[in-house]
Amino acid sequence: MAPLIVDIHTHVYPPAYMQMLRARKTVPYVHDPADGATPRLIILSSDDDASIPLDQRGRPVDASYSDIEVKLAFMRRHGINSSVISLANPWLDFLAPEEAQTWAERINDDLEATCARVNRAADPENTRALHEKETLYAFGALPLSAPRAEVVVREIQRIKTLPHLRGVIMGTTGLGRGLDDGRLDPVWQALQETDSLLFLHPHYGLPDEAFGGPEAMNRYGHVLPLALGFPLETTIAVTRMFLAGVFDRFPGLKILLAHSGGTLPFLAGRIESCILHERKFVANGGDVPGPRRSVWDVLNTNIYLDAVVYGTAGLKAAVTAAGGADRLLFGTDHPFFPPLGKDDEEWPSVTTNYKAIHAAFDGEGETVAGVLGENAARILKLK
Amino acid sequence: MAPLIVDIHTHVYPPAYMQMLRARKTVPYVHDPADGATPRLIILSSDDDASIPLDQRGRPVDASYSDIEVKLAFMRRHGINSSVISLANPWLDFLAPEEAQTWAERINDDLEATCARVNRAADPENTRALHEKETLYAFGALPLSAPRAEVVVREIQRIKTLPHLRGVIMGTTGLGRGLDDGRLDPVWQALQETDSLLFLHPHYGLPDEAFGGPEAMNRYGHVLPLALGFPLETTIAVTRMFLAGVFDRFPGLKILLAHSGGTLPFLAGRIESCILHERKFVANGGDVPGPRRSVWDVLNTNIYLDAVVYGTAGLKAAVTAAGGADRLLFGTDHPFFPPLGKDDEEWPSVTTNYKAIHAAFDGEGETVAGVLGENAARILKLK
Repeated sequence: MAPLIVDIHTHVYPPAYMQMLRARKTVPYVHDPADGATPRLIILSSDDDASIPLDQRGRPVDASYSDIEVKLAFMRRHGINSSVISLANPWLDFLAPEEAQTWAERINDDLEATCARVNRAADPENTRALHEKETLYAFGALPLSAPRAEVVVREIQRIKTLPHLRGVIMGTTGLGRGLDDGRLDPVWQALQETDSLLFLHPHYGLPDEAFGGPEAMNRYGHVLPLALGFPLETTIAVTRMFLAGVFDRFPGLKILLAHSGGTLPFLAGRIESCILHERKFVANGGDVPGPRRSVWDVLNTNIYLDAVVYGTAGLKAAVTAAGGADRLLFGTDHPFFPPLGKDDEEWPSVTTNYKAIHAAFDGEGETVAGVLGENAARILKLK
Repeated sequence: MAPLIVDIHTHVYPPAYMQMLRARKTVPYVHDPADGATPRLIILSSDDDASIPLDQRGRPVDASYSDIEVKLAFMRRHGINSSVISLANPWLDFLAPEEAQTWAERINDDLEATCARVNRAADPENTRALHEKETLYAFGALPLSAPRAEVVVREIQRIKTLPHLRGVIMGTTGLGRGLDDGRLDPVWQALQETDSLLFLHPHYGLPDEAFGGPEAMNRYGHVLPLALGFPLETTIAVTRMFLAGVFDRFPGLKILLAHSGGTLPFLAGRIESCILHERKFVANGGDVPGPRRSVWDVLNTNIYLDAVVYGTAGLKAAVTAAGGADRLLFGTDHPFFPPLGKDDEEWPSVTTNYKAIHAAFDGEGETVAGVLGENAARILKLK
């Protein structure tokens, strides 16, 4: 019997969202070249470079981003049984305050309807086991630009009532000031009370200056912002949450970190050491509260990591930091990182992660099965 | 027999350098409080915060930073046989162009004289084995702000003639524009030709905005800039070198990366995947050359990593990425991260790394011995 495979890191831009991006002229937006060539998706501020012709900015965006049939074909090609889809970055972060709630409800209702339709078609009587069919579940989007945190809280509570939603996805800016913002406490409270998993995902990267300025940054295409900017952003965001005592105040929070935690598993020891040596913290005689729990405790209790790290080195750090492989979950990052050759082949961005998981846990069949799908099925209660 | 222990990551500010910092009023500088309290060392731009009284800025700087006897006592307390000392950041980066060469020669001659004096005192006839005495070796400093790269090249050649120097230390800005700067080619050429190990070390961190601005950044003392800014800076710097093809043009370069490579071992897979998916590179049909060798090949051939990562998670990623533990070298980062309690105890910043090395390579005595000292003795030809 083939193992159950669940993809917990896979994105969509529903058609309504794409239409909204097409009407925009500033990041994020979609541009349709006049010559009928593939539309361009311009989502990163570094993509919107005036020195690049509009028809070449950003990246080509094809049906794989919004057509759920294309995702189902991708799943079949890679042996994936179930995908937990999420709105891709930058989600609803950029919306005007008065539009946020409407769009969140629209997107989440759309995700719920899509999952329901696909799952009914795959198994009308719902009698087959998870590894015998193709199913979809989803993480909901949040109206983070809404005028009040209560709007976000209400949407978290409403998402909990949608049968195919299994948590929420969020970027690193929170309500605009980062994840150590005290105004987020009602949001953490709501996530904890509803036992909703938060999928924390990067988008904003690092300031261009971190890479030597825009020219140096763009010299190598998307490599610096995607390979380094994204994971470093995630690491900074979750470290700020931790330093601000969020995990002390909300010990029941469950957070899934994209890209195996950015670099958190690798840096956890250094973070812990720097905290123990920081004179400013109360525990060391200073006047700043500082975190009460250790990074290791939080990694072993509150954090889940996807296995999207493209190598055994990263996976070994992830599983060691997380205190075991049962907190590690397979993902693909589809539809990003498509093969640059033929479209109908296996995606190297996916097979690299498959191979790494098998190599890192060589001979440990149960561990491999856990990472590939059983962990996700258990943690997200997939049926 | 106790194992040989070599510390390859340990810094000094020679007295002449401290005196120079005392005469300065802008970063980096040393401030002596009027009340005779411990002097303050202000080296990070984020330390020089006008809202903090001058007497409290930066960190206290005691004799451990410049008195070699204090370092020898530290070595004895921690069972370290040999230390490869290096000028601490920000080295000579900030000097006016006309001062750079003089200071480089002064510092390197001083390091050579200190090592010679200590080693002669420990073993006048030079008949004892390395693990039976306390010895010092050093990495030389470079005049990177000199008006021409040839000045740097000449100092690399001169360092090679100093019997106790075993390579050079460098920050991440190179000649001012980062390590992918083509003007550095003569420097890489000289390092390769003289077979000099380059110890690459962070100092500049990330722009404050990466941490949410100066207020958010300083809220947690030095934790964000030191725990995250430093390793992320190293990762960005070496990735830019790699992307610019430096390791293709200079395949004999040997680089020791501070803090186990920043986060390079963890992110190597993601970097490699992003390169394979970057349309801009010639290999993928674009017009930017891109690197010809893989990140893994460079990690297995050109890169050495210190073991200053404070945990088994990081160590496992480091050794996996480096293709074996024989490229991993023990270090302490002395005199940084002193215990905040009594001065005469063991330093937790050191014992954490000892414990992590023993735990990561549990039962592999030869591997542990290699990481603790034998690797360094072999690679740096210590006697």
